[in-house]
Amino acid sequence: MLAIDRDGTPATAFRAEVIERGLLTATGVAGVYGRSDLFEDTVTRIDRWVSSLVSGDNADIVRFPPVLNRTHFERSGYLDSFPHLAGTVHAFAGSERAHREVLESAQQSGDWSAAFPATAVVLTPAACYPVYPMLADAALPPQGRLIDVMSYCFRHEPSDDLARMQSFRMHEQVRAGNEESVIAWRERWVPRAEAFTAALGLDGRVELASDPFFGRGGTMLAVNQRDRRLKLEIVVPIASEERPTPIISLNYHEDHFGTAFGIVTADGRPAHTSCVGFGLERMALALFRRHGFDRPAWPAAVRRELGL
Amino acid sequence: MLAIDRDGTPATAFRAEVIERGLLTATGVAGVYGRSDLFEDTVTRIDRWVSSLVSGDNADIVRFPPVLNRTHFERSGYLDSFPHLAGTVHAFAGSERAHREVLESAQQSGDWSAAFPATAVVLTPAACYPVYPMLADAALPPQGRLIDVMSYCFRHEPSDDLARMQSFRMHEQVRAGNEESVIAWRERWVPRAEAFTAALGLDGRVELASDPFFGRGGTMLAVNQRDRRLKLEIVVPIASEERPTPIISLNYHEDHFGTAFGIVTADGRPAHTSCVGFGLERMALALFRRHGFDRPAWPAAVRRELGL
Repeated sequence: MLAIDRDGTPATAFRAEVIERGLLTATGVAGVYGRSDLFEDTVTRIDRWVSSLVSGDNADIVRFPPVLNRTHFERSGYLDSFPHLAGTVHAFAGSERAHREVLESAQQSGDWSAAFPATAVVLTPAACYPVYPMLADAALPPQGRLIDVMSYCFRHEPSDDLARMQSFRMHEQVRAGNEESVIAWRERWVPRAEAFTAALGLDGRVELASDPFFGRGGTMLAVNQRDRRLKLEIVVPIASEERPTPIISLNYHEDHFGTAFGIVTADGRPAHTSCVGFGLERMALALFRRHGFDRPAWPAAVRRELGL
Repeated sequence: MLAIDRDGTPATAFRAEVIERGLLTATGVAGVYGRSDLFEDTVTRIDRWVSSLVSGDNADIVRFPPVLNRTHFERSGYLDSFPHLAGTVHAFAGSERAHREVLESAQQSGDWSAAFPATAVVLTPAACYPVYPMLADAALPPQGRLIDVMSYCFRHEPSDDLARMQSFRMHEQVRAGNEESVIAWRERWVPRAEAFTAALGLDGRVELASDPFFGRGGTMLAVNQRDRRLKLEIVVPIASEERPTPIISLNYHEDHFGTAFGIVTADGRPAHTSCVGFGLERMALALFRRHGFDRPAWPAAVRRELGL
C-alpha cells in the first residue's frame, strides 16, 4: 500500500505519480491518455488472466472494433437512458467549397461540426453492446448462450479522475437464456468476482449500484435498479479510500435486451441477459495503487497470477 | 494457395469464404466486422511478431486509445488533405426536451445528429497521429527519436472489400530526426519490410504509391508524392491477384509534421519524420488467403515465426 493513500488528498497524489512516472501520459483531453509499455503490458496480462480464469466456461469468443452499428445502438435503448454519455461518429460529406469553409473555420478555432453529419456508426458504449445484435431475431439454443468480448469503449464524461477515462477497455462475459438460468449465472459470479479480486491482492467489496441515467426520470430508473438488485459492483480504492471505484460490474438486464433485439429462449419467451464486465484500465490502476509502482516488487502470488 | 485465387472473381469468393467460416462476422455496416477467436489470435500474433522483430531498434513503446485530441488532429493537416476519410466524435449536450426530440427522431429513423455537437476528440486516422503531439514544440535529442505505436484506426470509406475496413489496427514505427538520418532509416526499412513479408510466406512486392488526397488539388498532391517517392508500399494479393493490397506502408513526410507541430532537431531545424506501418487485419487476411483457412496446416516456417 502506498503512503499517499492515507494523506487526505490521495486522488491528486496518485494521479500525479502515475503521470510523473509516465504510466499514463496526458493528451490534452481529460480522460484520454497514452499508455506506457509497462501499463499496457499490465492491462494485457489482466486481460489474458481473465480469459484463462473463465476458459472452462467455454464461452464463444468474439472481438469487436471500437465502433458499433448506429441502428443497433438505437435499438439497444442506450440513447433513451444515457444520451449524455454516448459518442456518435460523424464524417464530412461536402463539396470542395464546403471543405474550404471547414478549413477556414478550423483556422479560427471555429466549430466546423455542422459540415460533419452522422455516419452509420457510433462509439461502442460497453463491450457487450455488439453481442445482442448477434443474437437478434432468433431463438437461443436450450442451454442459452455465453459470449466473451473485449473492446475499447467510449463514454463522454471528461474527468480528471484517472479511473474515469473516456476511452477504456472492458472484458465482458455475456449470458443469454431463460430467467432462472441467467439469474443463477449472475449469482454464481458474485463470489467468483470477489475471489478474482482477492487473487490480485485487492481489497474488494460487493456493492449495490445503479447506472447514471439521464434526466429527472433517470432518478426513478436508478432507484428501481437498486430495488431490483440489477447492478452489483466490486469496488476497490483507486482515486480514494472513502469512495472506492468499481473494477468489476455484474449486471442483470432482465428481458431488456431480449425484448429490444427479439432474442427468444428455446421455448419462445423473451430471453433474459446478464453481463459481467472487467474494467481493464481500472484493474491495472488498482494494482499499481495497491502494490506500488515497482512491479517486480509486487507480491509473489499476484505476480504468479499475471505470469510475471 | 487457395483455388479460388484463380477463377476471375476471387475477391467475392474469398470474402464469402471468410464470412461463411466466421473468421469475420458482418455487423450490417460495410467495413465493420466482428473478429473470431482464430482471426483475433492471428492478429495478436502478427502484432507480437512485429514487436519482436523490431525490439533491437529500442523504440520507445507507447499505446494510444482509438481517439485523438481534436486540436492535434486540426494541427496535423489531416483535415486539409483527407476530410472525406476523417471520423469526428460528437456527443449530446441538450435538455430533457431536446432528448425527447432525439428519441422521436430516432423512432422515425430520422437524423438526430444536429443535437450532437463535436467533442474534443476525433477517431485516430492512423496510429502515428498521437506521436507528433508528444514531440511538439520541443527539440529532439541529437540522435532523434524512434516511437512504436499500435492502435485501432478509423477511415470513413465504407467498402465490401474485406481489406478496406473502416475500423482496423495499425502497428507503426515512427522516426523523427534530421533529414539525412530519417531518409536513411526509411531506405533501410524497404528491404527489411520485404524480408518480413517473405518470412510469412507472402508474395510481396514494393510499389510506389500515393495517398487518396481530397478534391481536384489532391490529384496534384498525389503526383508530387509519387515524384518525390514519399510513399512506398509492400503489396500482396488479398482481394485480387491483379490489384494487390498494401500490407506495409513506408512513408517519408519530409518536414510536414515537424513544421506543423514545432518539432525541431538538436541543431534547431524543423524535424523530418517517417513512419513504417503494418496493417494487422490486412496481414492476417493475406495469410489466410495465401496459406488457407486451416491454420495448423500453414507452412512450418510461417507457424514458427508466429509461435504456432
